[in-house]
Amino acid sequence: MAAVPGTQLVLAPELHLSAQPRLLEEQADYPDEVAVPVPGPLTKSLSELSRKHDVWLVPGTVFERADDGRLHNTALAFSPQGELVARYRKVFPWQPHEECAPGDHFVTFDIPDVGRVGLAICYDGNFPEAFRQLAWMGAEVVLQPTLTTTSDRPAELVLARANAIANQLYVVNVNAAGPAGLGRSILVDPEGIARVEAGEGEELVTDVIDLDAVTRVRRHGLAGVSCMWEQLMRAGPAIELPVYAGRIQPPPGD
Amino acid sequence: MAAVPGTQLVLAPELHLSAQPRLLEEQADYPDEVAVPVPGPLTKSLSELSRKHDVWLVPGTVFERADDGRLHNTALAFSPQGELVARYRKVFPWQPHEECAPGDHFVTFDIPDVGRVGLAICYDGNFPEAFRQLAWMGAEVVLQPTLTTTSDRPAELVLARANAIANQLYVVNVNAAGPAGLGRSILVDPEGIARVEAGEGEELVTDVIDLDAVTRVRRHGLAGVSCMWEQLMRAGPAIELPVYAGRIQPPPGD
Repeated sequence: MAAVPGTQLVLAPELHLSAQPRLLEEQADYPDEVAVPVPGPLTKSLSELSRKHDVWLVPGTVFERADDGRLHNTALAFSPQGELVARYRKVFPWQPHEECAPGDHFVTFDIPDVGRVGLAICYDGNFPEAFRQLAWMGAEVVLQPTLTTTSDRPAELVLARANAIANQLYVVNVNAAGPAGLGRSILVDPEGIARVEAGEGEELVTDVIDLDAVTRVRRHGLAGVSCMWEQLMRAGPAIELPVYAGRIQPPPGD
Repeated sequence: MAAVPGTQLVLAPELHLSAQPRLLEEQADYPDEVAVPVPGPLTKSLSELSRKHDVWLVPGTVFERADDGRLHNTALAFSPQGELVARYRKVFPWQPHEECAPGDHFVTFDIPDVGRVGLAICYDGNFPEAFRQLAWMGAEVVLQPTLTTTSDRPAELVLARANAIANQLYVVNVNAAGPAGLGRSILVDPEGIARVEAGEGEELVTDVIDLDAVTRVRRHGLAGVSCMWEQLMRAGPAIELPVYAGRIQPPPGD
């Protein structure tokens, strides 16, 4: 997407640089085999790539080997100057199928003079708290690299639209193309309207978006009437939500 | 719906017994004019109705005059024995268009030998926290009487499906028929599939649902693979969500 002249961003699907060669013949030790340190040689190459092409680059995610030896499914973001500006470790791995260690916090980065970008990865979208937290941190667009190979892709498309509607922000969900993934990438505007969609098994979409639409939709409301974000953020009587006590926690007694 | 032989529940739209006679010519003092105490003469009549017809009755919502004089948009639930088993004051009134005082907590009730029912009202569905909290309280189906007259009905249908998917429970969203509302009632199963939908301007749907599907879908997962509820509720490292500190609160500095 290009938000102002000269500002381009390229987003690749989840595990674009670390996926199994053949997803249907998964090897349990594959993530350990291909995991990389961040920063490291791979991020150095990606940095050069973003600088060479003068783009903001979110090259999907990689298996990251953390300093403590644990593996994470990690999204990276590089500026056109080649700086690694953000690293986000997936908070909701697709358990039990995905064995990565979960991250414990959400991440945004700023594109100067354009806006604030949030990062989410695939299954994070099934947990409304992920997008709520990113919106609260000021994200105007959430980039969500995805690698979905299963029959819940239609449900993910519903959730991508719902996450955009409830938080009145853009959602860009790029799902890997066939034969690895089921495709059907989607770019949703802050009123939940799908601006562009890729076909079955296809991932590539291009678009030009205006992040000022977030401010406009929040001010005038969904369909010109419903201002959820303003209502949620307004000072006033707090709403008790025992499900959260500063964090997601199991119910008492469980 | 009938969940076991002999167990029937009837659900009417939001403000079914208190709506403006002509919604497009709203009188600002109308809610004050028609507000009722709960319990009171109106709930006595509804109690008799539920007993007479041997049904669980959720007669939509009414304008309720609370003991402190404030007006609430309040959902009621009666057992087939005529008992008022639940009263829920809408936590997210459709501000600024709706001037009712917000409620401050969520409500469920039990149908013995069948399951637990949560109550939400219309605009509550635009706030994922409402359904999350109800699910955490054990709701297997959320009844959501609705009175939507505006162009965001398509967005509400997305949100109804998303609330069902994310929490792996049933959502029954009954929207007033024309000429008052835009209709398009929907009943969504715990995998987000619309079991029945009413047409444009129509509200009436009938269905037979099995609340055990909630347990089944949570155990085997959306599309047989994605078990969000189990993952969310599992004991383990907490996920920090500064947006909630036990409640919904504005960001620091705002």
